[in-house]
Amino acid sequence: MPPQNEARKKHLADAAIDVLARDGGHGLTHRTVDKHAAVPTGTTSNYFRTRDALWVAVANRVAERHWEIISTIEGFPEKMATPNEASEAISLMLTGMADEGRIFNLAMLELNLEAIRRPGLRPTLHELNELVTRQMGINHRLQGLPADRETLDMIGIFLRGLQLSMLMPWNLGQAYDPARLIERAYGALLATAPDQTELPGSG
Amino acid sequence: MPPQNEARKKHLADAAIDVLARDGGHGLTHRTVDKHAAVPTGTTSNYFRTRDALWVAVANRVAERHWEIISTIEGFPEKMATPNEASEAISLMLTGMADEGRIFNLAMLELNLEAIRRPGLRPTLHELNELVTRQMGINHRLQGLPADRETLDMIGIFLRGLQLSMLMPWNLGQAYDPARLIERAYGALLATAPDQTELPGSG
Repeated sequence: MPPQNEARKKHLADAAIDVLARDGGHGLTHRTVDKHAAVPTGTTSNYFRTRDALWVAVANRVAERHWEIISTIEGFPEKMATPNEASEAISLMLTGMADEGRIFNLAMLELNLEAIRRPGLRPTLHELNELVTRQMGINHRLQGLPADRETLDMIGIFLRGLQLSMLMPWNLGQAYDPARLIERAYGALLATAPDQTELPGSG
Repeated sequence: MPPQNEARKKHLADAAIDVLARDGGHGLTHRTVDKHAAVPTGTTSNYFRTRDALWVAVANRVAERHWEIISTIEGFPEKMATPNEASEAISLMLTGMADEGRIFNLAMLELNLEAIRRPGLRPTLHELNELVTRQMGINHRLQGLPADRETLDMIGIFLRGLQLSMLMPWNLGQAYDPARLIERAYGALLATAPDQTELPGSG
C-alpha cells in the first residue's frame, strides 16, 4: 500500500469533482475517478475505501475550493464591503470563472442533492454555509447594513436560485447580467430587513 | 405487444417520478420502474423504448402534475391575485403537500440537472417555465402590479432557491415559515421593479 500522500489525495478529490460535474452522482465511482485522474486502477479505493468516504472527500474538497476561489478575488474581503462590490464578487463566484465555476457549481449542487440520501455529507455542507453566512454578516455589520439571520439567509436563498438558474437557462425568460440581478435582490432584501431602524448608517 | 394504454403510461410515468425522487438520476432505469410500478419486467421498456424516452415521459408527466397540483388549490387562480395570497398558494406548492410535494420538487430538480446532460428534456421544462411565468404576469397585470419580465424571473429565481433550501435545510441558519419568506421577497422585488411608476394602482 502506498503512503497516504496529501497531494495525491487532493488530486483524486479534484478528479472526483470533475467526474461528478460531468456525469452526475451515478458517474462517481472509484473506477471513473481512477480513469479521470490517470492513476492505476485501485488507487482511489486505496485512499477512499468506501463510496461514502469518496463522497465525503468530495464534500471536503469542494469546501476547500470555495475558499481558494474566493481568495483569488482581488482585494477580498475588503472589496465585498458594500452591496455593489459584493454583487460583483458574488457574480464572479457564480458565473465569471467559465468552466471552473461551472464545474464547481454543478458539483456543489450534486453534493447537496446526494446529502438528502447520504446524511454523512450534511455536516461539511452545513459548516461551509455557516462560515459563508457569518462572513457576510461580519461584512454587513462593518458597513452598518442589516445583518439579521433571516435577511442573510434570504440573500443566500436568492443566490442559490440564481446559481441554479444560470446552470439551467431554460428556466429564465431572457439573458441576464447576474451582477445586476444580485445587486437588485441585495438592495431589495436589505431595504426590507426587520431590524434596520436599529442600525446606525443604514438605508 | 399490449396496446398503448394511456392510463398505464401515466401509471408508469408516476412510478418513474417516485424512483427519480427516491434514488436520483442513476436509479431511473426501465427495470426499477417496472419494479416500483409492480408490472411485469419489460413493461416500461415496451412503453418507453429508450432511456431518453423514459426521461422525456417523466418531464411531460411532471409538467402535467404541476397543473394538477395547482388545480387543487382552492379558488385558483383568483386566490393568487395579491402577493399575500400568492405567497400562501406558492408556499403550499413548495412545501405544504408533505410527501407529494417533496417528491415533486425532488423529481423536478433531478430533471433540470439531467437536462444539462440531456438536451431533449429542455423544451418541456422551458415550456412549463414560460407558462408559469406568463400566468404570474397576467395575475400581476390584473392587480396593477409590476409585470416586467425581469421582476417575474427574479421572483422565479427566489422561489427556485427556496425550493432547494427547503429540501436542503443544512443550507439555512434556522427554520422558516416559507410563506413569510415568499411574501417578504415578493414585496421587496415588486417594490424595486423598474416600471412600477407607469402602472396604475401599484405600491
